[in-house]
Amino acid sequence: MRLSADPSTSPTDYDFTHDIRVRFVETDAMGIVHHSNYLHYFEETRVAYLREIGHPFTEWREAGLESPVLESFVQYRKPLEFDDLMTVHLHLAEVTRATFQMAYLITVAGPDGVAQVRATGVTVHGCVTTQGRPTRLPAWLVTMGAD
Amino acid sequence: MRLSADPSTSPTDYDFTHDIRVRFVETDAMGIVHHSNYLHYFEETRVAYLREIGHPFTEWREAGLESPVLESFVQYRKPLEFDDLMTVHLHLAEVTRATFQMAYLITVAGPDGVAQVRATGVTVHGCVTTQGRPTRLPAWLVTMGAD
Amino acid sequence: MRLSADPSTSPTDYDFTHDIRVRFVETDAMGIVHHSNYLHYFEETRVAYLREIGHPFTEWREAGLESPVLESFVQYRKPLEFDDLMTVHLHLAEVTRATFQMAYLITVAGPDGVAQVRATGVTVHGCVTTQGRPTRLPAWLVTMGAD
Amino acid sequence: MRLSADPSTSPTDYDFTHDIRVRFVETDAMGIVHHSNYLHYFEETRVAYLREIGHPFTEWREAGLESPVLESFVQYRKPLEFDDLMTVHLHLAEVTRATFQMAYLITVAGPDGVAQVRATGVTVHGCVTTQGRPTRLPAWLVTMGAD
Repeated sequence: MRLSADPSTSPTDYDFTHDIRVRFVETDAMGIVHHSNYLHYFEETRVAYLREIGHPFTEWREAGLESPVLESFVQYRKPLEFDDLMTVHLHLAEVTRATFQMAYLITVAGPDGVAQVRATGVTVHGCVTTQGRPTRLPAWLVTMGAD
Repeated sequence: MRLSADPSTSPTDYDFTHDIRVRFVETDAMGIVHHSNYLHYFEETRVAYLREIGHPFTEWREAGLESPVLESFVQYRKPLEFDDLMTVHLHLAEVTRATFQMAYLITVAGPDGVAQVRATGVTVHGCVTTQGRPTRLPAWLVTMGAD
Repeated sequence: MRLSADPSTSPTDYDFTHDIRVRFVETDAMGIVHHSNYLHYFEETRVAYLREIGHPFTEWREAGLESPVLESFVQYRKPLEFDDLMTVHLHLAEVTRATFQMAYLITVAGPDGVAQVRATGVTVHGCVTTQGRPTRLPAWLVTMGAD
Repeated sequence: MRLSADPSTSPTDYDFTHDIRVRFVETDAMGIVHHSNYLHYFEETRVAYLREIGHPFTEWREAGLESPVLESFVQYRKPLEFDDLMTVHLHLAEVTRATFQMAYLITVAGPDGVAQVRATGVTVHGCVTTQGRPTRLPAWLVTMGAD
């Protein structure tokens, strides 16, 4: 297991936020969001983060690079329901020459406006060429990790 | 609208059957299968049919061809629920030089063993190269349509 | 087939618009958005429309009503790709005492800023109690259809 | 993190196997199976396992019980591709009064017939009433964990 990041439940420990509203299709017969969809929320937020910092995913793909997910972890703390407006918090957690980790926190504003924790998670990514051969991370990403 | 096939509710009007069990993830908060998943069931059946007749989808892709969906129609007649074991019936309905239509019927065996109709549908497909340029259908498919 | 609406390709024929960005998970190995996801885009837009007009889906559900999809039709005109920012246009097309139809148009702004048509579609909905028994549409919806 | 099971890469360490063929919709624009779908494969296998041991998920639901996922972990070792016929191996890994863990291994037969490891994973489950209140696991499950 490469996964080492321990995702905080405090929003202030994260660098970036992105809002997503739960779609009806994402619910299941338990009346809550199906657990597999959290990985979609993390991915949408990761894509929004990379765009925000000026290195959109489309740039990676044009450069012949992909960042496949090597490991994923999700802790489901309190269910999300249909139409919930969640905030996904993201933090670039660990960077080596070959992999990087993203930590995530999902919150929903409670009736009192205070953020309630719904889930935390981590994804570990590698870097491969579009032919699927492992390669080094882009230099800018390694530099970010050194901060 | 290219779609012209009128999918029968009689299993005997179909050429091929394929069994699929409903996954929990495919249900929604109404407690039934979400309507978008029927297109997944049709696709899985189409792939199984092409394998059965000796022209698997992988052969298409190795030949540099894709058969994108141009139109889809689904009529939801009675809900599918979690764990239902459905039979998807498929019929190659219309073939021109550039497009083909597949008709579908989904049934579930009732308590008396008699097939209950759950849904019908149609997909219309074209043929494109992997670069996305429209091209003629494979000759064997045009021949099948002439039968 | 109850479906009778003929979805226009002109944005000016629609009442409401909603923007959605394509998620990576929504693409398939053809490199384009999988055809089943268009039904998710229609649904997200339908939910946003009902919220906008003051009758959110959550109100329906609290009143013990659901509006299941009876039929769906999609015409895929030009593929959507990862990260495309689409506009989904919606129009309440037909209302009877027991069913209503929504028509949809999906566009993406081209390099010149002009909206390019990507897809059109229709969904037909009924109204059922949470026990699944068909019932009349809410009065406000029948009234809207009379306009 | 409750997750403690360390999923083995050896098929002989597992109790149950279930075969699943990759659907086209499950692929993404990298040409491989999207990472979120592995949770669907685990779930389908879990449902098949519970049916096999005589305690189908439908029995749980009729008894007013659900077994929500509290945590999930997936290690993606080698991509799955469209049409791959995978074997999902499952092992009941840890059982307490309130939670149980399932470990998973996904393999695909290589050209030589030898199973190639594609992924491993773990899900941690609780037990709740259909009203969402945490409750004890069914006695038979606690007993199985004691073996």
